[in-house]
Amino acid sequence: MSKFWSPKVNDLVPYVPGEQPKMANLVKLNTNENPFGPSPRVIEAIQAELNDNLRLYPDPEGDSLRQTIAGYHKVKPEQVFLGNGSDEVLAHIFYGLFQHGEPVLFPDVTYSFYPVYCGLYNIEGKKIPLTDTFEINPDDFRQPNGGVIFPNPNAPTGRYLELAKVEEILKANPDRVVVVDEAYIDFGGESAITLVDAYPNLLVSQTLSKARSLAGLRVGFAVGHPDLIEALNRVKNSFNSYPLDRLALAGAKAAYEDEAWFRKCCDGVIAERERLSAALEKLDFEVLPSRANFVFARHKSQAGELLAQGLREQGIIVRHFSKPRISDFLRITIGTPEQNDALIKGLQSL
Amino acid sequence: MSKFWSPKVNDLVPYVPGEQPKMANLVKLNTNENPFGPSPRVIEAIQAELNDNLRLYPDPEGDSLRQTIAGYHKVKPEQVFLGNGSDEVLAHIFYGLFQHGEPVLFPDVTYSFYPVYCGLYNIEGKKIPLTDTFEINPDDFRQPNGGVIFPNPNAPTGRYLELAKVEEILKANPDRVVVVDEAYIDFGGESAITLVDAYPNLLVSQTLSKARSLAGLRVGFAVGHPDLIEALNRVKNSFNSYPLDRLALAGAKAAYEDEAWFRKCCDGVIAERERLSAALEKLDFEVLPSRANFVFARHKSQAGELLAQGLREQGIIVRHFSKPRISDFLRITIGTPEQNDALIKGLQSL
Repeated sequence: MSKFWSPKVNDLVPYVPGEQPKMANLVKLNTNENPFGPSPRVIEAIQAELNDNLRLYPDPEGDSLRQTIAGYHKVKPEQVFLGNGSDEVLAHIFYGLFQHGEPVLFPDVTYSFYPVYCGLYNIEGKKIPLTDTFEINPDDFRQPNGGVIFPNPNAPTGRYLELAKVEEILKANPDRVVVVDEAYIDFGGESAITLVDAYPNLLVSQTLSKARSLAGLRVGFAVGHPDLIEALNRVKNSFNSYPLDRLALAGAKAAYEDEAWFRKCCDGVIAERERLSAALEKLDFEVLPSRANFVFARHKSQAGELLAQGLREQGIIVRHFSKPRISDFLRITIGTPEQNDALIKGLQSL
Repeated sequence: MSKFWSPKVNDLVPYVPGEQPKMANLVKLNTNENPFGPSPRVIEAIQAELNDNLRLYPDPEGDSLRQTIAGYHKVKPEQVFLGNGSDEVLAHIFYGLFQHGEPVLFPDVTYSFYPVYCGLYNIEGKKIPLTDTFEINPDDFRQPNGGVIFPNPNAPTGRYLELAKVEEILKANPDRVVVVDEAYIDFGGESAITLVDAYPNLLVSQTLSKARSLAGLRVGFAVGHPDLIEALNRVKNSFNSYPLDRLALAGAKAAYEDEAWFRKCCDGVIAERERLSAALEKLDFEVLPSRANFVFARHKSQAGELLAQGLREQGIIVRHFSKPRISDFLRITIGTPEQNDALIKGLQSL
């Protein structure tokens, strides 16, 4: 701590992102990136923007991209908010919609950035335990709160909550915003975006980092009632007017204009997920049923931390969390068939 | 206001960026963009990153770019903090270094985002009047404060503060951080980065949006003592782990590897600034001496607002601020020789 710091900086507990090792030839299955590259149309669209116009500011509102996303999801552009990755969108949500002097509710096993945002904005967070089978029970979200947030499918569990149950949570909290963080929705779930016109308290966030293969481009968005979007715009315009650069805006738009590519990649990931899950079960792993682009699995006798270390020594990186309830689990990103084979082989040798 | 908003959202007074009109063929002299495009090496470097690796997250710390900037400015990489444009860097500065329960000092005529950040983080801002000649007087910054920030050259005035006077402010505030916002420093000023090793309370912010012709890429940075940088990293990692995308990181790095291009563009802007200033004086304008890529000028008899409107009707956009002390001024970005000629011709006709 330095005398120059705002005192609260000393209390921040920053998020620790999955490692981005700089060595080549790793089997990198630790940050839930897509094993397939982005659509060739994305590359072409960025190419077309790669010129002297980089000297000019981008459209601060990203109107063209918002229109494309709105059209894709059958909502209005004023129901779409863009951010520099869904993490920035989530940060603005915590600031703009969750500061009500009551605790924000999220699962005990979930995306570990949520408590970090609480710390950043002095919001109390309350962890709601998942069931013994690592599922969300909507009844547990019937209590006073300043907002509710959960990923669907949840991370790192991969478990999916049916939309009927999402609606139960929405109905139980008519005066608070319920955020469904759908980073992984395209790998087998049904988006709650279809519900935003029915529930003014629903906000859905998505990212282009996973199913759209664009983690390197930093684009995320939220969809909800225009009143909720207006709050986010006010916060964004008090923080950074131009969060998305010209190339990201162009590439993201093109990603929504190649549905065939998107489907092919998602289907490929899903097929490999099912194959990997079966193989892990054969190796005596318990594998939670996943609708995401990763599986969350624990071995019936071997400790998760040791398995992660053993894999690392073979150049295979998976994610392990030293946290209550899940310290014996590995979170394994679905890779290419070759990467998944390498993982299975690596585990067999341990 | 909606019941779903955090109550403080209602009190936010967001920043209003300069207009980004979507019409073609405008003479756009309102947002201080560079009339010259970025170095061809920037385009090539981005080109080289435009591939399947976009599926992977970028380096969250931007090590390679930080090393390049550190080398360029003869500091250590741990003295450099990167952000998604200098606006994001400034936001993190206000959060991480300016929350001390005392007012943050900035000039009364200055970058209008500073009071917005104060509003965002509930920091009191105190406006220190510029002198009658629109200059910063270091003596006015000898008073209790939670931090000091000013642009050098100042915006929208364009006036430059000699480094000896910057040092007076640093010496008067040994227990508080003094931020010198050098968005426009390369158009004729001397950077305070040369002082960071002597003053642990000095933080210098810069952007690639102006002299590096990359407003469309969104890259800014701060340089200072590693303790100050650590505070910013803690805030950044509590907000968004990956603020710079792969293409921005690559393009920004290349911008520092083409010194000849950079010099040529700066020299071109400076030469045009002097020509335009002389032409405006001939048209009965008072022109403040500018070291930036814009001039701030008022006509001796015609109102600024009417002149801005008259120019707009001719397809020439300049910036006008309806604010105390400066409502008769126009802030005119230095354009290409052709654009500047169009501006002069436009004014002659009014």
